[in-house]
Amino acid sequence: MILMNRPRAERVLDAAGLDGLLATSLENVYYLTHVWVESQVGLPRQAQFYAAVARNRLDTPAIACGINEMGNVLANAPAGTVMVPYGKFYRFVEPGAKLSDLDRQIKEWVIDGLGTSRSGVAVALAEALDGLGLARGRIAYDERGLLTEDVKAEVQKLLPGLRLVPGWAIFRQIRAVKTAVELQRMRAVLELNERSIMAAMGVAKPGATELEMVAEYERTVVTAGGRPSISQIFFGSHGSTGYVNGRSATLTAGEVIRFDTACYLDGYSSDIARNFSLGPPTAGPRVQRYYDAVVAGEEAAIAAMRPGVPASAVFHAGVAGTRKAGIPHYDRSHIGHGAGLEIYDIPLLGPNDHTPLEAGMVFQVELPYYELGFPGLQIEDTVLVGEHGSQIIGQLDRSFRVVPH
Amino acid sequence: MILMNRPRAERVLDAAGLDGLLATSLENVYYLTHVWVESQVGLPRQAQFYAAVARNRLDTPAIACGINEMGNVLANAPAGTVMVPYGKFYRFVEPGAKLSDLDRQIKEWVIDGLGTSRSGVAVALAEALDGLGLARGRIAYDERGLLTEDVKAEVQKLLPGLRLVPGWAIFRQIRAVKTAVELQRMRAVLELNERSIMAAMGVAKPGATELEMVAEYERTVVTAGGRPSISQIFFGSHGSTGYVNGRSATLTAGEVIRFDTACYLDGYSSDIARNFSLGPPTAGPRVQRYYDAVVAGEEAAIAAMRPGVPASAVFHAGVAGTRKAGIPHYDRSHIGHGAGLEIYDIPLLGPNDHTPLEAGMVFQVELPYYELGFPGLQIEDTVLVGEHGSQIIGQLDRSFRVVPH
Repeated sequence: MILMNRPRAERVLDAAGLDGLLATSLENVYYLTHVWVESQVGLPRQAQFYAAVARNRLDTPAIACGINEMGNVLANAPAGTVMVPYGKFYRFVEPGAKLSDLDRQIKEWVIDGLGTSRSGVAVALAEALDGLGLARGRIAYDERGLLTEDVKAEVQKLLPGLRLVPGWAIFRQIRAVKTAVELQRMRAVLELNERSIMAAMGVAKPGATELEMVAEYERTVVTAGGRPSISQIFFGSHGSTGYVNGRSATLTAGEVIRFDTACYLDGYSSDIARNFSLGPPTAGPRVQRYYDAVVAGEEAAIAAMRPGVPASAVFHAGVAGTRKAGIPHYDRSHIGHGAGLEIYDIPLLGPNDHTPLEAGMVFQVELPYYELGFPGLQIEDTVLVGEHGSQIIGQLDRSFRVVPH
Repeated sequence: MILMNRPRAERVLDAAGLDGLLATSLENVYYLTHVWVESQVGLPRQAQFYAAVARNRLDTPAIACGINEMGNVLANAPAGTVMVPYGKFYRFVEPGAKLSDLDRQIKEWVIDGLGTSRSGVAVALAEALDGLGLARGRIAYDERGLLTEDVKAEVQKLLPGLRLVPGWAIFRQIRAVKTAVELQRMRAVLELNERSIMAAMGVAKPGATELEMVAEYERTVVTAGGRPSISQIFFGSHGSTGYVNGRSATLTAGEVIRFDTACYLDGYSSDIARNFSLGPPTAGPRVQRYYDAVVAGEEAAIAAMRPGVPASAVFHAGVAGTRKAGIPHYDRSHIGHGAGLEIYDIPLLGPNDHTPLEAGMVFQVELPYYELGFPGLQIEDTVLVGEHGSQIIGQLDRSFRVVPH
């Protein structure tokens, strides 16, 4: 399975004068290798696992990892991957045991080959980079991942010709235009997010709490094998106040419900927002009017989204559209962001990001309205930029929906 | 609400010659302030939020954060917290609106005080540190959190007398001995983990898949407001192979089920392991014999756990106990780890960690046995170190349970 946009990676690496990439984080290791390092979910500051690719052979990565991870690597890494395990991990085998193909490979690597496991992570990483011909290369690594200063210094010492430069932004730049496989994943997680919102609405009734609705949302996500991330379901003016730990309101008739929910499925994220009301909103007709205004702003933004248009121009179109449609004082610091392996990918649809849009970029376009003492309102949709214009790829009704109670 | 062990923090800071602490990560900000930065759950590499304390006033932190976070800060930070917001965030208010107490405070800070929001994160952070009298101090920060090199350099420039030293290990050292409130949280999340394992066993029947049982486990966790983290539920020899993304087996009669599951509740983690069998194990009587041996090893380890005993001695006791009880070739790289705000806290019960145990430390003691082609076996329990000995604080039956099918 190949997630990476290789032609784009080649262009970005060439433009930046780079010989390769070193991934040190869950999402970037997955992007280069299709190995999901679940141990980093449990130990996000501790479970080191590295993957590298060279500019001239992007389809054959090298992996340096704890020898305990070898089963996952053998099952999921592309054919030809250079694998350099380190450390000790005890798995046993009895003579004559019946083994699966994977267990037979694990036996070869982890038990029979135990003596060849490298003594430490830096030695393994240096050897992995060398194995790709990168011992003297200029390599970008994602500096917000797990490469500690110690390990970095040790690798530099082992490979004095290597130049490691911060490149978290380089990874994000490559990932900004999705491949067909990635679009398929983005559609699947979006469908799950939509379905989970509607499941949560299925338990919306007077007396239900915010936390009960969050639980129903998350139950639906995990039932499909997804992972909840941002589960913001707020009633009434809580929706304008934002997240407060330990807080939960109880639903009453006439209350507005604001969803802003994000989840992951197979590594990819979805992040959308909707509003509902349990009967006609007691906050009055301004709710519907303002909701329609943010939707009009969203549509103005989407109409502006074409290849070559700067992200900042989309921002201004969205804010202006909302103001014109009925919230004259509307303002925001951004109205959306790229989407993919991170919930906030690049570009940002804000006044200071002038990145030109490209076909194949995916955005979460979002226009919230937060007025203290008034229901929080928000629309957010997933938008795919095409050659000649952009479209929402979700299926969920975008109107302000008044549901019976 | 006070999570931090202040007497211990004072001792650790004094021993290390430190004037204060700077938290840059979700768990350490929570430890110092009881503010849970949910935005870091959604944006773990991007959502900067800082909290600091001075050695001589540990009960009054300073916070530097995006002004959008102020609602959560106002609701949860201790009285007297020095709050320094930065950046822009648009919340609105209509004249004469009826506001909750929290919304009124937000109005004062975020709307009326908008002009006083600092221009950037470094300016805010420098001012927060200065506000604690730390402008010329020696401060430990958790270098595996979100303090980027840019921001760090800018803060150093603004406060030339400040000495920022890496201190991820210092935070972990302080956190290693739990307060009463923390123990209460640890018990609550443990109870949830136990209950969720039994819920997953409720759907164990021939034809059920590993992923269906994971979903039931996670449904139970999220229903209680928890967050799943490590959801390893493996059938038969999968339990000896370890995690492989994209894999799921189907349960058959006579198969052994291995749980190694971790979840969070109110910031704290639980990580335990159990084995079951759907009818008598087809892998034969060696399953029960070996299971009993790892349990005997666990008991030998726990019997050795007293204040003053080095972690490494506990390790050796556990391995020796297992060997003596029936797995002569048993070995491991560690047999457990501290537990708390991170799933793996310190100390590590391994051969190279000679940290003396202290009363009030909490461990996950774990003895897995991984033999390729044979069911994965594992016992793991939460153990509280007391003045005169240690005890398992969980309630879940520790025997190898053969359940009907």
